[in-house]
Amino acid sequence: MIELNFDKMGGLLPAVVQDYETGEVLMLAFMDQEAWENTLSTGLASYHSRTRNELWVKGKTSGNVQHVKEIRIDCDDDTVLLKVEQVGGAACHTGHRSCFYKKIEGNEIRVIGKPVFDPREVYK
Amino acid sequence: MIELNFDKMGGLLPAVVQDYETGEVLMLAFMDQEAWENTLSTGLASYHSRTRNELWVKGKTSGNVQHVKEIRIDCDDDTVLLKVEQVGGAACHTGHRSCFYKKIEGNEIRVIGKPVFDPREVYK
Repeated sequence: MIELNFDKMGGLLPAVVQDYETGEVLMLAFMDQEAWENTLSTGLASYHSRTRNELWVKGKTSGNVQHVKEIRIDCDDDTVLLKVEQVGGAACHTGHRSCFYKKIEGNEIRVIGKPVFDPREVYK
Repeated sequence: MIELNFDKMGGLLPAVVQDYETGEVLMLAFMDQEAWENTLSTGLASYHSRTRNELWVKGKTSGNVQHVKEIRIDCDDDTVLLKVEQVGGAACHTGHRSCFYKKIEGNEIRVIGKPVFDPREVYK
């Protein structure tokens, strides 16, 4: 088992999630030891839900799981980078491909792109 | 001023840093309100150093600053994505282009790429 440093954030570390083909950054989530081990053993991107305080296998509800194609860790072993295949084409609960769909332009926020799915249909 | 949500991590939020041309994820750091405002007003990627507990204008010591080309924020305004031009070609203090130079292969860690600079020369 590869040991990561979960100490800096009280048992959590950030995971950056990138599309394995396009390089687009899809989302950022947090992992604890359980989520890290579950990701390694299942090949499905797994995080720790801070709001529900439990293991969160991304897409378990919607079916839009993330198949992990590559895992990188950073220089001081306290951040994970996942390169994933995003089933359903959208990582964001809003239906956007990426959670980072808001671009700062001066003092304005401009929305980039349109939702891939209607969240009301996916999360009934 | 665009308002971000710094509450979830006690005044900090994660910032993902990506090369604006290649899409390579270079590093992850944390911002507080001061770092966010400094980034917006100067165009230089600025973070909050957790170890020194102060504003950290990336590259101020080494000269390897990050010119911010684009700023995205995520769906719930608690994560920033910076697309930057990395002066000097390397974002990592080890001299690697990206901090994510360690790839997980089974139970092994494989180092990807070679350092661009010798950190002993840059940080004297």
